[in-house]
Amino acid sequence: MKEKIKKIAEKAKAAARKMTSISTGEKNKVLEKMADLLVEKADFIITENQKDIEKAKEKGLTSAMIERLRVDEKGIQKMVDGVKVIIDLPDPVGEIEKMKRLPNGLQIGKLRTPIGVIGIIYESRPNVTVDTASLCVKSGNAVILRGGSESINSNIAIAKVLNDAVEACGFPENALQLIDITDRNAVNEMLKMDEYIDLIIPRGGHQLIRMVVENSSIPVIKHDKGLCHVYVDSDADLKMAEDITFNAKTQRCSVCNATESLLVHGDVAAEFLPNMVKRFQDAGVEVRGCETTKDICPEINSAVEEDWDTEYLDMIISVKVVSDIHQAIEHITTYGSMLSEAIVTNNYQTSWKFIREVDAASVYVNASTRFTDGGEYGMGAEMGISTQKLHCRGPMGLDELTSTKYIGFGNGQLRE
Amino acid sequence: MKEKIKKIAEKAKAAARKMTSISTGEKNKVLEKMADLLVEKADFIITENQKDIEKAKEKGLTSAMIERLRVDEKGIQKMVDGVKVIIDLPDPVGEIEKMKRLPNGLQIGKLRTPIGVIGIIYESRPNVTVDTASLCVKSGNAVILRGGSESINSNIAIAKVLNDAVEACGFPENALQLIDITDRNAVNEMLKMDEYIDLIIPRGGHQLIRMVVENSSIPVIKHDKGLCHVYVDSDADLKMAEDITFNAKTQRCSVCNATESLLVHGDVAAEFLPNMVKRFQDAGVEVRGCETTKDICPEINSAVEEDWDTEYLDMIISVKVVSDIHQAIEHITTYGSMLSEAIVTNNYQTSWKFIREVDAASVYVNASTRFTDGGEYGMGAEMGISTQKLHCRGPMGLDELTSTKYIGFGNGQLRE
Repeated sequence: MKEKIKKIAEKAKAAARKMTSISTGEKNKVLEKMADLLVEKADFIITENQKDIEKAKEKGLTSAMIERLRVDEKGIQKMVDGVKVIIDLPDPVGEIEKMKRLPNGLQIGKLRTPIGVIGIIYESRPNVTVDTASLCVKSGNAVILRGGSESINSNIAIAKVLNDAVEACGFPENALQLIDITDRNAVNEMLKMDEYIDLIIPRGGHQLIRMVVENSSIPVIKHDKGLCHVYVDSDADLKMAEDITFNAKTQRCSVCNATESLLVHGDVAAEFLPNMVKRFQDAGVEVRGCETTKDICPEINSAVEEDWDTEYLDMIISVKVVSDIHQAIEHITTYGSMLSEAIVTNNYQTSWKFIREVDAASVYVNASTRFTDGGEYGMGAEMGISTQKLHCRGPMGLDELTSTKYIGFGNGQLRE
Repeated sequence: MKEKIKKIAEKAKAAARKMTSISTGEKNKVLEKMADLLVEKADFIITENQKDIEKAKEKGLTSAMIERLRVDEKGIQKMVDGVKVIIDLPDPVGEIEKMKRLPNGLQIGKLRTPIGVIGIIYESRPNVTVDTASLCVKSGNAVILRGGSESINSNIAIAKVLNDAVEACGFPENALQLIDITDRNAVNEMLKMDEYIDLIIPRGGHQLIRMVVENSSIPVIKHDKGLCHVYVDSDADLKMAEDITFNAKTQRCSVCNATESLLVHGDVAAEFLPNMVKRFQDAGVEVRGCETTKDICPEINSAVEEDWDTEYLDMIISVKVVSDIHQAIEHITTYGSMLSEAIVTNNYQTSWKFIREVDAASVYVNASTRFTDGGEYGMGAEMGISTQKLHCRGPMGLDELTSTKYIGFGNGQLRE
């Protein structure tokens, strides 16, 4: 096993070296071919996907899980659309920043480069195979894909189609490799290949991410869970606060940047909460409140300690009345996952306090937590949302898939 | 042990939170107080350092190692000068970059923030305690210092003096903590505290770095070994090539960006090497050459395979004649540590090929490899030189000790 994974990693490193000198035009050509072949070979992919669906049914997976697994014509069209978005994005590789002349005349700056070899470990949805492979091609990185066993047939089929494009365009061989071993040890071996792999991106549940973080000797960028809050301040426009909170909770409740907890300043709770709770209940959202919230809206369920700590990813919201901005920030710091946090206020001082002191990947004043997204930020496509502070934080697009190197142009400079 | 380290990590996290809202002026005030107290309490530090020196002598450490350990008045003045340089550097925290308005009117940008809690694991030289602590104070990070057992008394004394400054200025308590447990398990426990510590920086030998990379669940920025090359191209100005190579090898041979191997294009080897070798020999540098080099300069020693792979950190250089730029890059890719690499050439195409294809933290045309240094790059002070591609690559200064968060100013924007 170790030898097999090592071979894959070595081949990826060799491919990555060739990819440093490939032009944007050549990369776009491969992406165009990939888009064409995905359409052309849609039947093949759908047939292979059917095997995974059958297997999932046999295993008794929930229908939600089976739907996440399914690839149909519409799904393939969405993959193709994704590839086309990436073709249109500017190529960050080759940008030179901060070029300056040192006192000795040496001209130094930072040249943006691919990272090298990126390993992606993901679960379930087969479209991730296309998204991540095309982002890696565009950013000039060799990629090693390791999808979940439940979608193995779909992933093998998609990788085959993508590699047909790689071959047809004379792109570096092994730029894109799929590990088709479903044995979990394959992941463990992969995580030790720091000699060859520069970055590991785990995409999936909390358990997968913990496993990767604890076992990887390769730098990891994690996209961990999202436990987000909206804080309605005493100086909020309460109509705006209601709209933002409702949007943050219900616009799509199953995603990481949806809001799970609402915090309300005590001075406006009695005025704000009855309408808010009614709107949630009318929309089928279960509301779980603290004692003060229940005093105002006795018909709702009680929130227990565990609620403050729970990422529902469902039509449920917990509500807590706080005494001031300090208590709100304290609560967010204690329970939040530091992904996406919002305050609704018209107070200048309070808005900046929240911006400065809430330590999250994205912090908003008077806007929905749902905006934390590569597409919304104008990145076109994203690799996930980094919940750590190293390398990049927040939505991760093409720029974040690059590194830099210092370059220096001299005419004989010596160190004194 | 675990509980003790956890307590330290928790306290650091609490301090880091307070540090997010501290002004540059307050940070500079602490640094000034640190500089004052280091001078004032120099005798105390030197006395404590003497204990480490005695212990080192008893243990039979080499005199070079003992010298690295020694802190005298001059050494303390150098520490103070270092602190003063950091006071004068601009504070990156609070910078807002790339502020733009999205089509929906939401104004988003990236606010530069401290990273949070930084753990430094280092060996030997006690001045690292001052350098890293003051860089962390200026960048608003809480720091946990874990020095080597050989300098434990010096480090405890220095940390005490620095903490007197922290206290005197009313700076957040525990912003700066030293782990005074010399037991190696303390490091292992520290590496698992990813809930509290955001970044680990190991500074020391290859073995320490491997241990940290293999055991840390916290992101690591490593400063690994330096095996650097100068490649003299067929189109080089040979006088310039000689000066650069000599400077890169001998200006200070014990550091990571000193050159260990010289590569020479076959077309100029016979003209270039005799003078170069003579100059090295006159300066007491041992030259170990490949067969072709030995044909030209028969008096030198033979290089064996192991030489290409050795970071001498000494007055020794290996020399290889290569057939062209491709073979030079191939050699560098195979044996180099990808830290600092230089080509000497006046050929435009060759210079850009080298810049693009050599995958190192710093790549130079017509300049010495010795320039890869925070001070030389105008960063004032550095935390080390990152030899990895994630987060930052090359010299690591104040900017590299920060992260960013997205901030968004809206007026009721909802996601559609």
